Amino acid sequence: MNRIPFEQVHECLARVLRSLGFSDERAQLSARLLAETTCDGVYSHGVNRFARLVAMVRNGSVDSASKPRAVARFGAMQRWDGQRGPGNLNAHAAMAQAIALSREHGIGCVAMANTNHWMRGGTYGWQAADAGVIGICWTNTMPNVPAWEGAEPAIGNNPLVIAVPRTSGHVVLDMAMSQFSYGALESYRSRGELLPVEGGFDAAGKLTRDPGAIENSQRLLPIGFWKGSGLAVMLDLIAATASLGNATNQIANDPLRETGLSQVFIAIDPRTLGESARLEQVAEEVVSSLHRSRPTTEGVRVRYPGENTLRLREENRRLGLPIEDAVWAEICRM
Amino acid sequence: MNRIPFEQVHECLARVLRSLGFSDERAQLSARLLAETTCDGVYSHGVNRFARLVAMVRNGSVDSASKPRAVARFGAMQRWDGQRGPGNLNAHAAMAQAIALSREHGIGCVAMANTNHWMRGGTYGWQAADAGVIGICWTNTMPNVPAWEGAEPAIGNNPLVIAVPRTSGHVVLDMAMSQFSYGALESYRSRGELLPVEGGFDAAGKLTRDPGAIENSQRLLPIGFWKGSGLAVMLDLIAATASLGNATNQIANDPLRETGLSQVFIAIDPRTLGESARLEQVAEEVVSSLHRSRPTTEGVRVRYPGENTLRLREENRRLGLPIEDAVWAEICRM
Repeated sequence: MNRIPFEQVHECLARVLRSLGFSDERAQLSARLLAETTCDGVYSHGVNRFARLVAMVRNGSVDSASKPRAVARFGAMQRWDGQRGPGNLNAHAAMAQAIALSREHGIGCVAMANTNHWMRGGTYGWQAADAGVIGICWTNTMPNVPAWEGAEPAIGNNPLVIAVPRTSGHVVLDMAMSQFSYGALESYRSRGELLPVEGGFDAAGKLTRDPGAIENSQRLLPIGFWKGSGLAVMLDLIAATASLGNATNQIANDPLRETGLSQVFIAIDPRTLGESARLEQVAEEVVSSLHRSRPTTEGVRVRYPGENTLRLREENRRLGLPIEDAVWAEICRM
Repeated sequence: MNRIPFEQVHECLARVLRSLGFSDERAQLSARLLAETTCDGVYSHGVNRFARLVAMVRNGSVDSASKPRAVARFGAMQRWDGQRGPGNLNAHAAMAQAIALSREHGIGCVAMANTNHWMRGGTYGWQAADAGVIGICWTNTMPNVPAWEGAEPAIGNNPLVIAVPRTSGHVVLDMAMSQFSYGALESYRSRGELLPVEGGFDAAGKLTRDPGAIENSQRLLPIGFWKGSGLAVMLDLIAATASLGNATNQIANDPLRETGLSQVFIAIDPRTLGESARLEQVAEEVVSSLHRSRPTTEGVRVRYPGENTLRLREENRRLGLPIEDAVWAEICRM
C-alpha cells in the first residue's frame, strides 16, 4: 500500500484523461472527483475504478469529448441527454443545474438519459450540500439483483444519494439497493470472511452469509427483501420515464459495456422560504439526538450518515491517499 | 368477519366524523379515504384505525376543524403549517397543491409541519398517479425503531411513498423503514407464527423471527440494517428542516399523542417536457420486464409494487369491505 499525495494523484489521473481526449478543464475536474472519492474513503469508486473508466473510453462506451445537453425545459424541470459522455462530468453538470434551478424555484430537477456510470454517487450529494441545498439523486444500473421472488438478475442496485447541509458536517447517505455490492462480496471472499449479515441466496435458495455462494448464484439480496426490490423498481421507473432513457432491463449486463444509464437529480433550497438560521438548528438537533441515543456497545456512539467522511478526508489529505501498489503502478504506466 | 358495502361504511364513518366537529364536506372526504384504504386491502390503516383517530380527536391531539395553511411560498416550493388538523385531510390537500405546482413548474414540493398521522401513505401516491403525475412523499413518526448500533428507539419508521402513473395500473410503493411494524408483529404473534424473515433483536441482542421477543426488546430492525436506519434519518432531516417542524426525537412517544409530524410531498409532471406517449411506453416496458423475469417458484409471477391493489379493490367493492365484527359494532355505536 502506497500513500500518494492528493495533488500527485490528481495530476496523474488528469494526464491520463487528457491523453484519452478529455479537454484540460474536463480532465482536471474528472480527476479531482476521482481523487476526492478515494480521499473520502470510498476506495471502491475512486482511483481503484480508474482502469475500468479508461477501458470504457477505449472500447467506446464512454465518449470523452461528449457534453450533456438539455433537450427539454419547463420551469424547474429539465430533461437532458448525457450523450454517453463521462459519467462523473455529466452528473456533476446535472446536479449543478438542479442546484441553480432550486435557487430560482425553491426546488429543481434534471432527469438525464444516455449517460454513464457516475462513479461515486455521494459526490453529487456533497456537491449539493456544499452549495447549501438539499440534494437527492439516483441512477439506474444494469440488471444485477433479482427482483423479489425472482431467480435471475432483473433490477438494478440503483444507488440513491440524499444529502442535507450542516455547518459542522453535511449529512450524506449514499446507498445501493442491494445489501452488498459484487465488489463487497469479492473483498469478503478474498479475505476468507463471512458477511456480517445475510447478503443473498445460495444455489439452493437459502439465505447465506457466504459471499462466494452468492457470487455463484447471482442472487444478491435487496435491502429489506421485498421492500428494497420495490424501491429499486420505483427509482428505475422514475429515472427512465422522466428522462425518456433506458430502464434497467434495456442496459447491457456487462460491467465494461454498462452505458446508456438514466439518472435523476433533485435539489431543494428551503432557504428560499426564509428562516435559514432555524434550518441549521433543526439539522443540529437531529444529529445530536442520534449522538445522545443509547448505543448497543458501550463507547460506540450511534453515527449519522457520512459521519466518518470528514475524518477520513482529513487523514488521507494529510498522509496521502492509500492506493495499492499494483493499482498505482498500472496508472503510472498509462 | 362482516362484508359491509362500501357506501354504508363511508356514510357511517362520515356520520361519526360530523359528530366530532368535521364539516360535512371534510367528513365525507376523510371517510372516503379511510374506506378506500380498507377497500384497497390495507386493513391496518383504514377502518381498523378509525377508533384511534376518534380517540385522538377526543383527546385534543387532532383538531377536527383545523385546516392547513401556507406559511411561505417561493416558486415551486411551499411551506405549510398543518395546524394539527386531521392528518389525512392535511396530506390530501398538500399533495393536491404539489400536483398543481408540478403542472405549473414541472416539479412541485410542499413541506408541512405540525400535522397528524396521515393514515395510509399510499393514498397520496394513488392521488398523484390518478392525476397523471409522479408522486413522492414521506412522513416522520415518533421514535419507534433504534438507529443502527442503538439500543433504544431513536428514529421513526418514516413511511416513504413513491407512485408512477400507468394506464393499466399505477405502480405504487408504500413502505416503512422498519422491516415490520408493531401492528405486523402483533398479528404474527396473535396467530402464533414466526416472522417470515428476521425482524429485530431479542433481549440478548440476537436477530430473531420471534415477534413477541421483538415487541419486548423494542428493537425493530430497519430494512437493510444500517441502510434503512440511514434512510430514516435522511427522510426525517429533510421533513423537519424543509417544514421547520418537529424531528422524530421531538415527537411524543405515545401512539395516542403522536402529533406535530413533519411531511414532504413532491410531484413531478414529466408530461410538461413533452413526449407523453413515450412516458407510457417506458413504464409499460419496466412492468413487463418484471413479469418476464424468471420466478423462484414456478407459476408465481414476479410482481410490481401495488400490483395486488386493483384486484383487491375490485373484489372488496363487489363483495363489501371485510371488517371484523367487533370493529364494526364499535363504530356503529359511536
